[in-house]
Amino acid sequence: MSSTIGFVGLGNMGGPMAANLVAAGLEVKVFDLVADLMDKVQGGIPQASALNAATDVDVFISMLPAGVHVAGLYLEQGVLDRLPKGALAIDCSTIDPGTAQQVAAAAADKGVAMLDAPVSGGTAGAQNGTLTFIVGGAADALQRAHPLFDIMGANVFHAGAAGAGQTAKICNNMLLAILMAGTAEALSLGVDNGLDPKVLSDIMKQSSGGNWALNVYNPYPGVMDGVPASRAYQGGFLVDLMAKDLGLAMATAEASKSSVPLGSLARNLYRVHEQTQGAGRLDFSSIQRLYKPELVGEQ
Amino acid sequence: MSSTIGFVGLGNMGGPMAANLVAAGLEVKVFDLVADLMDKVQGGIPQASALNAATDVDVFISMLPAGVHVAGLYLEQGVLDRLPKGALAIDCSTIDPGTAQQVAAAAADKGVAMLDAPVSGGTAGAQNGTLTFIVGGAADALQRAHPLFDIMGANVFHAGAAGAGQTAKICNNMLLAILMAGTAEALSLGVDNGLDPKVLSDIMKQSSGGNWALNVYNPYPGVMDGVPASRAYQGGFLVDLMAKDLGLAMATAEASKSSVPLGSLARNLYRVHEQTQGAGRLDFSSIQRLYKPELVGEQ
Amino acid sequence: MSSTIGFVGLGNMGGPMAANLVAAGLEVKVFDLVADLMDKVQGGIPQASALNAATDVDVFISMLPAGVHVAGLYLEQGVLDRLPKGALAIDCSTIDPGTAQQVAAAAADKGVAMLDAPVSGGTAGAQNGTLTFIVGGAADALQRAHPLFDIMGANVFHAGAAGAGQTAKICNNMLLAILMAGTAEALSLGVDNGLDPKVLSDIMKQSSGGNWALNVYNPYPGVMDGVPASRAYQGGFLVDLMAKDLGLAMATAEASKSSVPLGSLARNLYRVHEQTQGAGRLDFSSIQRLYKPELVGEQ
Amino acid sequence: MSSTIGFVGLGNMGGPMAANLVAAGLEVKVFDLVADLMDKVQGGIPQASALNAATDVDVFISMLPAGVHVAGLYLEQGVLDRLPKGALAIDCSTIDPGTAQQVAAAAADKGVAMLDAPVSGGTAGAQNGTLTFIVGGAADALQRAHPLFDIMGANVFHAGAAGAGQTAKICNNMLLAILMAGTAEALSLGVDNGLDPKVLSDIMKQSSGGNWALNVYNPYPGVMDGVPASRAYQGGFLVDLMAKDLGLAMATAEASKSSVPLGSLARNLYRVHEQTQGAGRLDFSSIQRLYKPELVGEQ
Repeated sequence: MSSTIGFVGLGNMGGPMAANLVAAGLEVKVFDLVADLMDKVQGGIPQASALNAATDVDVFISMLPAGVHVAGLYLEQGVLDRLPKGALAIDCSTIDPGTAQQVAAAAADKGVAMLDAPVSGGTAGAQNGTLTFIVGGAADALQRAHPLFDIMGANVFHAGAAGAGQTAKICNNMLLAILMAGTAEALSLGVDNGLDPKVLSDIMKQSSGGNWALNVYNPYPGVMDGVPASRAYQGGFLVDLMAKDLGLAMATAEASKSSVPLGSLARNLYRVHEQTQGAGRLDFSSIQRLYKPELVGEQ
Repeated sequence: MSSTIGFVGLGNMGGPMAANLVAAGLEVKVFDLVADLMDKVQGGIPQASALNAATDVDVFISMLPAGVHVAGLYLEQGVLDRLPKGALAIDCSTIDPGTAQQVAAAAADKGVAMLDAPVSGGTAGAQNGTLTFIVGGAADALQRAHPLFDIMGANVFHAGAAGAGQTAKICNNMLLAILMAGTAEALSLGVDNGLDPKVLSDIMKQSSGGNWALNVYNPYPGVMDGVPASRAYQGGFLVDLMAKDLGLAMATAEASKSSVPLGSLARNLYRVHEQTQGAGRLDFSSIQRLYKPELVGEQ
Repeated sequence: MSSTIGFVGLGNMGGPMAANLVAAGLEVKVFDLVADLMDKVQGGIPQASALNAATDVDVFISMLPAGVHVAGLYLEQGVLDRLPKGALAIDCSTIDPGTAQQVAAAAADKGVAMLDAPVSGGTAGAQNGTLTFIVGGAADALQRAHPLFDIMGANVFHAGAAGAGQTAKICNNMLLAILMAGTAEALSLGVDNGLDPKVLSDIMKQSSGGNWALNVYNPYPGVMDGVPASRAYQGGFLVDLMAKDLGLAMATAEASKSSVPLGSLARNLYRVHEQTQGAGRLDFSSIQRLYKPELVGEQ
Repeated sequence: MSSTIGFVGLGNMGGPMAANLVAAGLEVKVFDLVADLMDKVQGGIPQASALNAATDVDVFISMLPAGVHVAGLYLEQGVLDRLPKGALAIDCSTIDPGTAQQVAAAAADKGVAMLDAPVSGGTAGAQNGTLTFIVGGAADALQRAHPLFDIMGANVFHAGAAGAGQTAKICNNMLLAILMAGTAEALSLGVDNGLDPKVLSDIMKQSSGGNWALNVYNPYPGVMDGVPASRAYQGGFLVDLMAKDLGLAMATAEASKSSVPLGSLARNLYRVHEQTQGAGRLDFSSIQRLYKPELVGEQ
């Protein structure tokens, strides 16, 4: 735990994660293309480049928007070449499993242990150190990373070998999109036929329709306190981001020739929602409004 | 609780329900068009007709296949005319809300209190007296019926006014079909990309993909003991019956002009599954095989 | 051709149809619940009731909104009892095949020949006498009706026995909805990726994507003159009516347990379009706006 | 027309295309990784490598399976470096528009004119010289290529700038998949409800459901002579290839964030068809069997 850490990518997620590592007393070399973001991580040691942040560190962590950035960082910019032999690299970005496997294979060639460790829990989880990490890679690498995950998060799952963290997160989020939209659809059908959304939510939650959305993230305004549906769908997990994750699910399904009819429909419902209702920056539970546009989401 | 009860419809569900009422010490006049089924309810009092079963009873219960049978029994055969004023009628069939409301209105005209009370829990729940009743109708009628529901079941939900029990059950089962197929789809996508179905199930169950199927009814063979997926999808809730319930959901959506894209797709996936794989008599979690036909469902 | 005709249902479609029969020199007894509509059919002989319009006529024609009205007219109000033996009844309404078959069977019992003869061609076709009739029933009855169809329309298809006219129209309109939405979707995808909608339309029209919409009813504003897309989607075949026909397709599929995944999705896309964009009274080619809401439909 | 041509990729499509150029009297340097395929192009001049086939030629043509091969050939293997300044490169592969644009931009940098020119018409069209070319790139480059397209094909469409040929073909084939599956669905619904598939096909072909499949490629066995449906769905355009093209459509839609609900569903219906019925090597009109598995496709 006396490691020196390099951290690249200091946005809404990466910034607070790096800050939590600093707060735990670790030495963290930070870099982001947007210089201001480095200043926000107080106590971090700003670097002039990503390569500098990969120099003389024990652990290197990245948090980037997409697979093309991850491949660019590790393979083209040369981070894998710069990292010391025996270092541990952890990519927390949510990207396609194929790129994750490609980077991990290149890391192995260089003697660098690599984990793909996409997170869930959103910006609040990043700030509060309560993220969930879904990890792909070797068990011993995960063991080395565990103390860091414990600082930045609350749960760690080992999904399997390299790329498995990405695959598991993609599968989970595809299922999440299906059940969120499905829950919104069932609630709308009930309300359209005279049911009270609270009563119907309560019945389904305790029956075979029970799911995470009904338990903690009800999409119907006025049913549950403290969720995005009760504050006009502000904050939370944005429609744009869910649509991006569903795009990753589609690409993953294409690579394996898997059929994903419900996931594909969910992807397209989210795109229609985004485009017809300008909903990209609303919480993803606002899919309720695709079914009942009159619901503005305020109590 | 010293009531005399009439019970019509003694199939796989109605038979054990009537038997549980007899076992609780109640006098139960039973009728079914299939005479043998009356003999199976030992201690029940076989009747020559449905009308006889509605004569001089305090409570009348029906358990029939479809709305056309319910309307035929109460309206055309004249059960509502025969029931004493002040009697309580409980229809436990799963039918369209429109017919339920029509029969309830006719009952009110005759001075008969009426509840629609479709059940979930399957034949095992009927036999063990652990059914769930989802009830539409007046609160005082429900109060009168409650002791009987307690004999035949374990849970009672009051969904709202006449027809609301049907609507709530239909909404729940539509959501159930979506999340079961969605769970099967996510598990297939994961397995096609190298994940272990047990590991992925465990991760999603504890994450935002969590739902009833992952908790107690995993569709992937070998993941969970004691579920249909671990006995070649025998028993359980049949594909044919789920498809029927989804047909009710579609008709309900048509009546209210509601959009139900995911429920409609689930309905059609179940029909494709039934037709391409001859799966009508398999448990509904066998939808897993639409995604991975090679899974025969044995451990 | 010297027949006396009864005509019930004088709305946007039935009114001009009856007027064309009058203009051809036929004696036409007309009835509609809205008295004003009778006056609009100049030369028609207004009646006090539907039954009167069925008295002493050789041919009886109906044009009503839904199956419940058709069953009400022929079976409950007693038109079949009133019609002379040997009369010919033609129902031009678009309804479910089941009701059409039920009414036709009752007609046969009374010695009345019956055709189901739903139309396509819209209000313009009704006014100009260029409708298409898709007919179910006996060949000799169709032969008798043919001169009347020739007055009111331009094309007659014999689809099969009683109800087959309805089934064929429902199948055609389901396919129409799929290919209209599919064409809109392909055009949007092309435009989103830099293609000119005219160029792409021209290529697909001459290739394997060719279909009726590309030929005569292009949904993209500015591609084709004289179509609803070039006049802000006013007029034409309304979204509400297409949604109704798709509802009939869903009910027909439910009755035969057929799988209709694309038709179901089209039904739900039309409902989402109607609800999120208030598009019920626009032409059905306005489904283009579900994909590109910024297209107001003016050149 | 006295040009020397290089041709790389001599499979089922590229082989006959190159042979037609030879037959027209042109000098054609041919290369394929599978040496035997070079011998099949009698009169062609076999080369030791793709680079050799790009040496001292006026026009270079490629016909490869996927975007990764096209990028590999032109960018990594160095064909663009080898081609003389002022040469014309024509890629006839069906690939993603993004790669086509990337290669075209690199070609422009080297002073090489580049066209993307995917084809339709299948192996029969390649052999008979009746292919359709859908072309993206500059008008003057297309003018140079036109005589060669006339030798190898019968129709040429200019879709727009670089990549537009790919985009247009992808849009057309997505629409084709939708209308083929939609036609099969409508025919099944009709037959399930008692209609004759020939009669229904005839009605829809002349009505608003009219489309290319009904005109020349009816998917229902026994309706039309000489199509795959009348020879057990052998030959034609394989399910595997249609599924691949639909995958390109999904990737293109993801890049532009377009909604493609019907195309996505068609993609997944084709995947389900392939997997549940082992249909990958059948003609794509065999999607009829997803709706009616009992149709083996023989008259």
